[in-house]
Amino acid sequence: MKATVRSNLNTRVRSSKSPLPQPLFDYHPLTRVIYGPGTLVRLGELARELGAHRPLLVTDPGLEAAGHPQRALVSLRDADLEPILFDGVEENPTSRVVEIGAEIARRERIDFLIAVGGGSSMDTAKGINFLLTNGGRMSDYAGFGKATKPMLPSIGVPTTAGTGSEAQSFALIADERTHLKMACGDRKAAFRAAILDPEVTVSQPRIVTAVTGIDALSHALESYVCTRRNPLSQAFAREAWRALEQNFDRVLRNPDDVEARGAMQMGAYFAGAAIENSMLGACHACANPLTAHYGLTHGIAIGILLPHVLRFNNVAAGALYAELVHDVGLINGDALAAGEVLAQRIAGFVQSAGLPSRLSDCGISRGILPVLAEEAAQQWTGRYNPRPAGEAELLQLYEAAY
Amino acid sequence: MKATVRSNLNTRVRSSKSPLPQPLFDYHPLTRVIYGPGTLVRLGELARELGAHRPLLVTDPGLEAAGHPQRALVSLRDADLEPILFDGVEENPTSRVVEIGAEIARRERIDFLIAVGGGSSMDTAKGINFLLTNGGRMSDYAGFGKATKPMLPSIGVPTTAGTGSEAQSFALIADERTHLKMACGDRKAAFRAAILDPEVTVSQPRIVTAVTGIDALSHALESYVCTRRNPLSQAFAREAWRALEQNFDRVLRNPDDVEARGAMQMGAYFAGAAIENSMLGACHACANPLTAHYGLTHGIAIGILLPHVLRFNNVAAGALYAELVHDVGLINGDALAAGEVLAQRIAGFVQSAGLPSRLSDCGISRGILPVLAEEAAQQWTGRYNPRPAGEAELLQLYEAAY
Repeated sequence: MKATVRSNLNTRVRSSKSPLPQPLFDYHPLTRVIYGPGTLVRLGELARELGAHRPLLVTDPGLEAAGHPQRALVSLRDADLEPILFDGVEENPTSRVVEIGAEIARRERIDFLIAVGGGSSMDTAKGINFLLTNGGRMSDYAGFGKATKPMLPSIGVPTTAGTGSEAQSFALIADERTHLKMACGDRKAAFRAAILDPEVTVSQPRIVTAVTGIDALSHALESYVCTRRNPLSQAFAREAWRALEQNFDRVLRNPDDVEARGAMQMGAYFAGAAIENSMLGACHACANPLTAHYGLTHGIAIGILLPHVLRFNNVAAGALYAELVHDVGLINGDALAAGEVLAQRIAGFVQSAGLPSRLSDCGISRGILPVLAEEAAQQWTGRYNPRPAGEAELLQLYEAAY
Repeated sequence: MKATVRSNLNTRVRSSKSPLPQPLFDYHPLTRVIYGPGTLVRLGELARELGAHRPLLVTDPGLEAAGHPQRALVSLRDADLEPILFDGVEENPTSRVVEIGAEIARRERIDFLIAVGGGSSMDTAKGINFLLTNGGRMSDYAGFGKATKPMLPSIGVPTTAGTGSEAQSFALIADERTHLKMACGDRKAAFRAAILDPEVTVSQPRIVTAVTGIDALSHALESYVCTRRNPLSQAFAREAWRALEQNFDRVLRNPDDVEARGAMQMGAYFAGAAIENSMLGACHACANPLTAHYGLTHGIAIGILLPHVLRFNNVAAGALYAELVHDVGLINGDALAAGEVLAQRIAGFVQSAGLPSRLSDCGISRGILPVLAEEAAQQWTGRYNPRPAGEAELLQLYEAAY
C-alpha cells in the first residue's frame, strides 16, 4: 500500500473496543417497506395483496384538509375494497379512543387495519387491533407479547417523519386516568407493510415538521448509546442520525423539497428500527411525565431535555458520541467533549425551529420537578440509559433544563 | 448555536444531491437474524419453532474437521428432530450436485432445509429447495420468481464471512456444462432465519478468511454505487464497508479474535442485504468468466479486479466513493481521487493477505481476455455498473488487471 493511503489509527474516532461485551441480538423484521414519492397510490393494491376486504382506515381528522385520507380511500376503492373510515384519532391517544375505534371495527366486521397519519394514528390502529382480536382492555397488553390470539394484518402510512412507529411492534397508548403512556408490544401488532411516501409529509405544518424531526433525532441519539445497543440497532441509528442531521434544517427552510422530506422519512424509519432492536434512554424517561402532567408536546419536551441528557451521558458514552460527530462531519475545533458538540447541534436545531429551549418557558411549575423525577425514574426505557440515572440524576436533568 | 460547533458545508464530503433521481424501493425483509457467539446451539430450537421434523442438513465435507455439522446435528437431535445429513457440497456448486441433494431429500421425505457452510452450502440448499418443491431443473429458475409452488422453510448458518447468501433470495448455481453461474431467485427461497455465530468462522483457513473477506468488501463497494442503489441498500452497504474495512486485517492477524470475526460476519451480512436490495457491477461481471474457464477462486478474481474497477468507475462514482473514504477515516493527504484511495486500500488488503494481484500470476492466458470480455458483457449484474461498461471497457479492465 502506498504512503498516500494510510489508515492512520490515531486519527480514527471509532474505538475498536466496545465499552460493553459484544451483545447478541435477534432481528426479526416484520414489515415490508415501500418507499418513494407518490407511492400512496399503491395502498389499495398492497392491502388487497395482504388479504384485505373491509379495511378500517384509522386517521386524524386534521389530515383531511390535506386530502391524504381521501386519497387513501380512493386507492382502496379502486382495488375493489370496502374501506370504513375512523377519523377519531387524538394526539397522545388514550385507551378511550382506542376502545371507540375497536367498537366501530367490531360493528363493521373489518378484516384489516390501515393507519394514515402520525404516531398517534399508527398507535391507535395497533391498539384497535389488540382489543378487536384479543378482547379486554389496553392495560392487559402493557409489556410485550401479551396477545395470545392472532391479530389482523395491517399497513402503516406515516404522514410525519418522527415517531418511527411504522417500524415497530409497539403501540404507545396513554392510560385514560393517569395519562401515562403504556407501551403495548407484540410481534403480531407490527404493520405487515409500511408505505413511505415523502409527498404526504409535505403538508405538515412547520411546527409538526420541527417537533417530529427533533423526536426522530432523539431516537437515533438515544438508541445509539443505550445499554441494549447492538451492531444492528447501531447501524440503523447511525444511518438515521446521518439522514436527519443533514436534512432537518433543509425541510424547515424548503418545506416542498421532496428529496429532503424523503431523507427525513428514511431517517425516522431507521430510527424507529433502531429502537425496535434496542431501547431509548433518560431523555424519553424525562419527557413522558411532562406530557402526562402538562400535555406538553412530546417533541418540545424532547428538544428541551436532549441537550442536557447528551452532556450528562458524555462521561459514559463519549466515545460513541464521537463516532456520530465524525459521521456527519461536524467540526470540533475547540476539542469539546463529543456530547457537548451534539448538545449544541441539537440546541441549534431547537433554536432555528423556533421551539422553546427551557422548561420554564413552557408553563411548568418548578415545584413539580421532584414529582416528575420520581415518575421518570419509573419509566422502563430510562433503565437502558448508558449512564445510570436514578431519581436524583433525573431531577438534576430537569433542573438543568428548567 | 455557538461557533465551536459548526457544520462547515465546504468540508463535508457528502454531496446533498444524488447524481441520479431519488429512487423508489420495496424492501421486503424475509429473514430473521440471530447473532452472537455460541448461537449455533439454538439451531434445533429454532428449526422446531419453524416447523421442522425431518430437516436436511446441507454441508461441505471440509467442515467436518472443525466439527460444525456435528454440533448442528446434536442441536437438532436435542430438539427431538430427525436430521438427515447431505455433505456432498462442492465449491461453485453445479446443477448436478443440487440434483443429487434433491434426490436424497425426496427419498428421505425431508420437510425443512438447513445449510451449514459458506456460500456453496447455502446456495446448494436453496437449489435443492427449488427442485424438491417445484420440480424441473435448475435452469428453469434462472431469473426471479419462477417457483410457482410453495417452498420449504429453511435456515442458513454461514461459516464464512463473505457471500452474504444468508441475506438473499438468490442461489448461484453453475450450469453443469458451461460452468457459468445462473442466479436463481425467489422470495420463497430466502432463509426464514439465519444464525450468525462468529465462533463458527474461527476455524476457517487463513486463505478462506482472506478471499471471502475480499468478496464481502467488493459487495459493499459495488452495491453502494450501482445504478440500482437506493437509500436502504446504501445504508446496508455503508455499514458493511465500515465493519469490513476496519476488521479485515484484524482477523488475518488474530484469527481467534471473536469480536473482529463478529464484525466481519455482520459486515458480510449487511453487504448481502445491500445486494439483495440493489445490484453489483463490473467487478462481478468480470470475475465470473474467470471462475468458469479457469476455476479461479471467486475472491481471488475479485481481489485482482476490484482496484481497477474502482479507478475506472471514479469518473461516475467519485462523489459516492468520497463518502466511503470519509466514513472510515482514510486520510487522503495527496488529494487523490476517492476511487484511487479505495483502490489502493483494497490492493493493500490483497497484498497483506498474500493473494495474487495480477491475472498473469494466476495461469490465465492473455489470448483469452477478449473471450472473457465478451462473456462478461453478457453478465446481468454488469449492466448496473455506475459507469457503462461494454465489451471494450471490460477488455480494458481485464488488460489493466493482467
